[in-house]
Amino acid sequence: VSDNCCIVLDRLVEGAPRPEDFRLERRPLPEPGAGEMLVRNLFASVDPGSRGRLSGRASYAPPLRPGQVMEAQTVGLVVQSDGGRFAEGDLVAGALGLREFAVTKGRGMRRIADWEQPISTAIGIYGTPGMTAYFGMLDVGQPEPGQTVLVSAAAGTVGSAAGQLAALRGARVVGIAGGAEKCRYLREALGFAGAIDYKAADDLADAIGETCPDGVDVYFDNVGGVILQTALGHMADGGRIVICGQISQYNREGTAPEGLVDPHPFIYRRLRMQGFVVFDYADRFEAARREMRGWIEAGRLQFREHVLDGLERAPEAYSGLFQGENFGRGLVRIGELA
Amino acid sequence: VSDNCCIVLDRLVEGAPRPEDFRLERRPLPEPGAGEMLVRNLFASVDPGSRGRLSGRASYAPPLRPGQVMEAQTVGLVVQSDGGRFAEGDLVAGALGLREFAVTKGRGMRRIADWEQPISTAIGIYGTPGMTAYFGMLDVGQPEPGQTVLVSAAAGTVGSAAGQLAALRGARVVGIAGGAEKCRYLREALGFAGAIDYKAADDLADAIGETCPDGVDVYFDNVGGVILQTALGHMADGGRIVICGQISQYNREGTAPEGLVDPHPFIYRRLRMQGFVVFDYADRFEAARREMRGWIEAGRLQFREHVLDGLERAPEAYSGLFQGENFGRGLVRIGELA
Repeated sequence: VSDNCCIVLDRLVEGAPRPEDFRLERRPLPEPGAGEMLVRNLFASVDPGSRGRLSGRASYAPPLRPGQVMEAQTVGLVVQSDGGRFAEGDLVAGALGLREFAVTKGRGMRRIADWEQPISTAIGIYGTPGMTAYFGMLDVGQPEPGQTVLVSAAAGTVGSAAGQLAALRGARVVGIAGGAEKCRYLREALGFAGAIDYKAADDLADAIGETCPDGVDVYFDNVGGVILQTALGHMADGGRIVICGQISQYNREGTAPEGLVDPHPFIYRRLRMQGFVVFDYADRFEAARREMRGWIEAGRLQFREHVLDGLERAPEAYSGLFQGENFGRGLVRIGELA
Repeated sequence: VSDNCCIVLDRLVEGAPRPEDFRLERRPLPEPGAGEMLVRNLFASVDPGSRGRLSGRASYAPPLRPGQVMEAQTVGLVVQSDGGRFAEGDLVAGALGLREFAVTKGRGMRRIADWEQPISTAIGIYGTPGMTAYFGMLDVGQPEPGQTVLVSAAAGTVGSAAGQLAALRGARVVGIAGGAEKCRYLREALGFAGAIDYKAADDLADAIGETCPDGVDVYFDNVGGVILQTALGHMADGGRIVICGQISQYNREGTAPEGLVDPHPFIYRRLRMQGFVVFDYADRFEAARREMRGWIEAGRLQFREHVLDGLERAPEAYSGLFQGENFGRGLVRIGELA
């Protein structure tokens, strides 16, 4: 190998990302210095949350500039280590971006456990999306046995895990997803008590009212916008709204946000709305992974991956996220382990 | 005494309440039946929170109809008891409405303690407003030593108590109030670190930014609307927004609410917005009153009352609430104890 394929931002993104917003670039293979490692990436993720960095405007993370490598979670193999944090042959998870090879000091990275199989789960159910579902649902949402939990983008990586975790706590879970196939998956494969196809529903409010007749105790929101506002009209007394993602709003930067929340019902319905940053829980990730492993191995927590083969397909996978095309954790396979 | 003066709703209220929305009516003196008491009221409160019942529309409490006695918190003397919950001569606090005499079974009422002096404090700092400040600030807002707490309607009954309770917890407290006199009171009498006169401020956002340079850890909101939206732009990471009241919105029923909240910053700023109903904490009221008594007797928790003499002045006092005219707990004196 003498060069390094990378997916870079070709131009600032406006509205929904398109494959043409990115380009493939061959760069020289980097060389690790003292205390650094060379990692060969095997899998990379595509994440809706990275949208905020693509418009060139400052947000809570610095914006990505055209010509810079697109950010992504990655699983890779340490192929060279010059006194780095990990040893040659270690499998490591991190956020090295959409590229074949990266040089890193290993900050924020972790060695993945043998039982994280397939290894792509290290950036899926055992990675940021799984942790987001775990802490967002269990710590922020706090569903109790018998309560009604409503999840939007419920067939997505975070949503499907969050819903199943609520069910494992004894809650009655209803999912909102787009399309009959995803709704069937929620009901039949994951055992959700109800699934609402928001694309097919004549009236989303009626559909929520029918599937959640006692009101919603926890609304786990991945989408924002109109679905959030509609769900808020169905909260039970003491309900919690977990603001996990706002994917319906990510392409609307610079326009007035939709889905603004009326605070008045918060008083008489005793509601709580809370956002969170999953990395605040980092010191509990290892324990959460071990608990989830037990459920996964017992068949009580399921997940899907949506893998496209080849780094060059990442732009297509990324823009597909915003079309609701992905069904499962969005991944590209960059290379084989052997 | 042979008749019973009452203040009744004359017509459904639209927009800001006016004195003419009410009328004084003389009714026959009621007689207690078995298990009931006749109570002579001495003080009654005027409360912004009762506005929601005056428009004829169903809300979380049934609407008041024209001809019905206006609701109010009351302190009164039991003058006759036919096996009722309290004995003749007991001083009792409850919600018997704007009338001289009422017959009641005593449900939801309490005998007031000797140390609740003056007795009007039983429906003020030791009553619903004091409890609202205590549980709203300490249980919902949870200020920590050194944190910045911002309170709107800070010279009001709830706001001034909430701010002082936060200061007793070691927080740095900034109040928003209307007018120089109220702001001087916050700074000089109550020792707030800052006070913003929202009527005089050129730019409320700038004023909050200057008085809260490290951001707002707890925003205790009594008003909603534009002030809430502006305060939200200054929240610190991990900030809590306590939705206690929305007085700026109570006269806008039937129109689009102002002050809608954008959920997106809740994610990256890790915000929590929560409303509450004070009666949910009823089993802790007695302990809270005792703790507040200690602070009051030590001069560390101050309060003001705005007393008008005579039941007939209640309509004037009530409409004044919505003009920001009251400065202290709004009360009317209905009768003397002796």
